[in-house]
Amino acid sequence: MTNYENMAPNEIRDLIRKQDITGPTAGMSKGFTQANLVILKKEYAFDFLLFCQRNPKPCPLLDVTEPGSFHPSKIAGDADIRKDIPKYRIYKDGVFTEETTDITEYWEDDMVGFLLGCSFTFETPLIEGGIPIRHIEENCNVPMYKTNISCEKAGVFEGPTVVSMRPMTHEDAIRAIQITTRFPSVHGAPIHIGDPSQIGIADISKPDFGDAVTIKEGEIPVFWACGVTPQAVALQSKPSLMITHAPGHMFISDVRDEKLSVL
Amino acid sequence: MTNYENMAPNEIRDLIRKQDITGPTAGMSKGFTQANLVILKKEYAFDFLLFCQRNPKPCPLLDVTEPGSFHPSKIAGDADIRKDIPKYRIYKDGVFTEETTDITEYWEDDMVGFLLGCSFTFETPLIEGGIPIRHIEENCNVPMYKTNISCEKAGVFEGPTVVSMRPMTHEDAIRAIQITTRFPSVHGAPIHIGDPSQIGIADISKPDFGDAVTIKEGEIPVFWACGVTPQAVALQSKPSLMITHAPGHMFISDVRDEKLSVL
Repeated sequence: MTNYENMAPNEIRDLIRKQDITGPTAGMSKGFTQANLVILKKEYAFDFLLFCQRNPKPCPLLDVTEPGSFHPSKIAGDADIRKDIPKYRIYKDGVFTEETTDITEYWEDDMVGFLLGCSFTFETPLIEGGIPIRHIEENCNVPMYKTNISCEKAGVFEGPTVVSMRPMTHEDAIRAIQITTRFPSVHGAPIHIGDPSQIGIADISKPDFGDAVTIKEGEIPVFWACGVTPQAVALQSKPSLMITHAPGHMFISDVRDEKLSVL
Repeated sequence: MTNYENMAPNEIRDLIRKQDITGPTAGMSKGFTQANLVILKKEYAFDFLLFCQRNPKPCPLLDVTEPGSFHPSKIAGDADIRKDIPKYRIYKDGVFTEETTDITEYWEDDMVGFLLGCSFTFETPLIEGGIPIRHIEENCNVPMYKTNISCEKAGVFEGPTVVSMRPMTHEDAIRAIQITTRFPSVHGAPIHIGDPSQIGIADISKPDFGDAVTIKEGEIPVFWACGVTPQAVALQSKPSLMITHAPGHMFISDVRDEKLSVL
């Protein structure tokens, strides 16, 4: 098996572009930041950019392409967001229509690509800090929940904050708050800790997205704002065309995780 | 003399709206964040928002109004950015034409207001940390310099990063880096320390904006990205109409300085 973990981001992107890689990107180019993708037409771009600016915790923008440009100049100038993601999803009028490995045929001259930070970036330092991540231990997707915390509206975009949850001991929770505080540009510190009902989660064993994980005796749930929020909110407004990455099939940038920490 | 220092932000804004206050806002509503203002028409708003997103250190956005709305809903929902700043500057086609205390007559339905973080917010914790601020000691404006550090271009907006400079002892410089790191949303940590020539400053005694200050024996200059950058860059593109606050005449928000720290 090829050792994707130690390959450079541009090498991985090259394999993705050739469609030699079409699966999930977790663990590839270790140490480099992976990003969520949302592509919208220019008519929605100002409102969506404003939405992200007003809601930086769930919508941490790493890069926004110039309208019509498919190069994310800030985080990987030689990349092509039409081809360098293993799997895309196409949504028309808010309805999922297709999964594809190349969106060149869908690209239009007024499209804007939004690259958003992802929790992979802060999970690495958590693990290196000795904090076990339950959904990784249980080899499933992180549990995600809609909350009663409204995002700040911007133009046509509005909706609830989605959170991801990681259960841990109380001591680890304190350390996790410290560690993720260092990364304000990839969700930052948790937005809630301890009582799911306070943020509108009725049943912690029934996530709205992802998979349920075990919460052990003596552990508390820790909630971070989640990058699913902007996609969910964008879909609600039913744009004529919206393209995203498929879950787990992320964009691998040239930016080292550590570059995103403020200290 | 009225004690403006301990008045609430909405009380000060009310006096400004009545034009009972028309002077600089330094020291008013102590502990609450003051902001720079740039108003542009919608046609420039996406590019300018993108410029700020790409250059967060010189252009730390605290709020952006909905097109046509004069209420900065995130930082002071009941405020009116047409009236609640003591003095405005009007620029037509990139040329300064007028100073005024109320811009209601200039307001158009497609205007967008950008409120940007200001170094007042991090100077307070520096002073409280025992670090003397030279331009405050010398009762003048902070020295600012154009550098050879290009901002990331966005649409029509491009130009050099402008920095502000505060000289201090080497020990204080270390502490100042720690303190301002806590405030990534108001310029954050310095972008250079020590050698002005490395960032394209030929003569430290001749600032491009503001006033020169004394640099004492054994002190080093510490440079922060400066909120003058976005205004300077916007002007270079000669928008048909642009409105800003007059220097030192800031918008006083309802947000406490400490709210902007990440730890």
